[in-house]
Amino acid sequence: MEYPSKRLTEVIDEIAKLPGIGKRTALRLALYLLKQPVSQSQDLAQSILKFRTEVKHCKICHNISDKDICDICNNTARNHQLICVVEDVRDVMAIESTGEYKGVYHVLGGLISPLDGIGPSDLTIDKLIKRLENDSIDEIVLALSSTVDGDTTNFYIYRKISALTVQQPKISTIARGISIGEELEYADEVTLARSILNRIPFEKSIKQS
Amino acid sequence: MEYPSKRLTEVIDEIAKLPGIGKRTALRLALYLLKQPVSQSQDLAQSILKFRTEVKHCKICHNISDKDICDICNNTARNHQLICVVEDVRDVMAIESTGEYKGVYHVLGGLISPLDGIGPSDLTIDKLIKRLENDSIDEIVLALSSTVDGDTTNFYIYRKISALTVQQPKISTIARGISIGEELEYADEVTLARSILNRIPFEKSIKQS
Repeated sequence: MEYPSKRLTEVIDEIAKLPGIGKRTALRLALYLLKQPVSQSQDLAQSILKFRTEVKHCKICHNISDKDICDICNNTARNHQLICVVEDVRDVMAIESTGEYKGVYHVLGGLISPLDGIGPSDLTIDKLIKRLENDSIDEIVLALSSTVDGDTTNFYIYRKISALTVQQPKISTIARGISIGEELEYADEVTLARSILNRIPFEKSIKQS
Repeated sequence: MEYPSKRLTEVIDEIAKLPGIGKRTALRLALYLLKQPVSQSQDLAQSILKFRTEVKHCKICHNISDKDICDICNNTARNHQLICVVEDVRDVMAIESTGEYKGVYHVLGGLISPLDGIGPSDLTIDKLIKRLENDSIDEIVLALSSTVDGDTTNFYIYRKISALTVQQPKISTIARGISIGEELEYADEVTLARSILNRIPFEKSIKQS
């Protein structure tokens, strides 16, 4: 479709570069901005620029932060001997919102994915291994997606840790099973089988609820 | 959900002001931008600012344009005695893409909608009436949505034109009927009834196909 203005064409092209947004949606968003006060477009543009140029990755765990070291790594009340390994920043937020985890994190920045051309060197795995070498860590919790890429990354990290010459941390992974509130008959077979194999004492489950 | 960075919180708040985009999508878009080169965020912010501050509405038809008078109104090859009245800029683009319309446009900027608090004075109806008073227009084509608001607006414009003391233009409306390729049995009753009432000579339909 041809647009009646060069400026409109430009803004549509830029907005449509964002994932999941096509040219039709981009046009709708641009026309919406045109009906709002100029200040809204200025605030939007400013916030994008500031976010992209000023936000940092924590030097320890690679979580997003405004400072060199994030609030979680800086928090002495947390258990720095317990590291939860996650794929990206959203996973940190999801786990934090449960309020159940008191350790620290390590954000990989993705998963090993040969199909997408993402190898271990594109992630922060080397920095994780450095953390293990420099500090004595008690336990690593692998909290990656249970996909082929997630399993590959889990196994790669497991092998790297096994090769450590310093004291090796305990390696655990988050539990897979039937979701709370999910009906058994609709669960997939693999998950159901895993939830039976990894069953836990009933008394323990009562205490958690 | 709490975000680990003030800059991230700000950009999510601004992006989530856009229609149809929630906080979760805004977070996904922000993290996407963080993985792309800084230049992409700069181009995006620049294009939004330039679009919002530099784009104009044509002084005659209120279509979006980079100039004071849009390319359609400036085109002497078009029939300036024929005005198609549409709700917004997207309708102009849609009609232009058919290549079948050789007249000019008038963009209302919305529809009369008492429920949304939009009255005739919020639209460009007065300017349409001025165009009719100043130039001798042969025909007005009302091409608004066939909704309650569309019908209200159609009727308001019809009454305004009927009250004109200068030469009154012919008023027509676009045809409603069964879409090309649509099956009769799935069409709604009102549309089907209208398409029978407004039937056209068979010879005419052959010439159009």
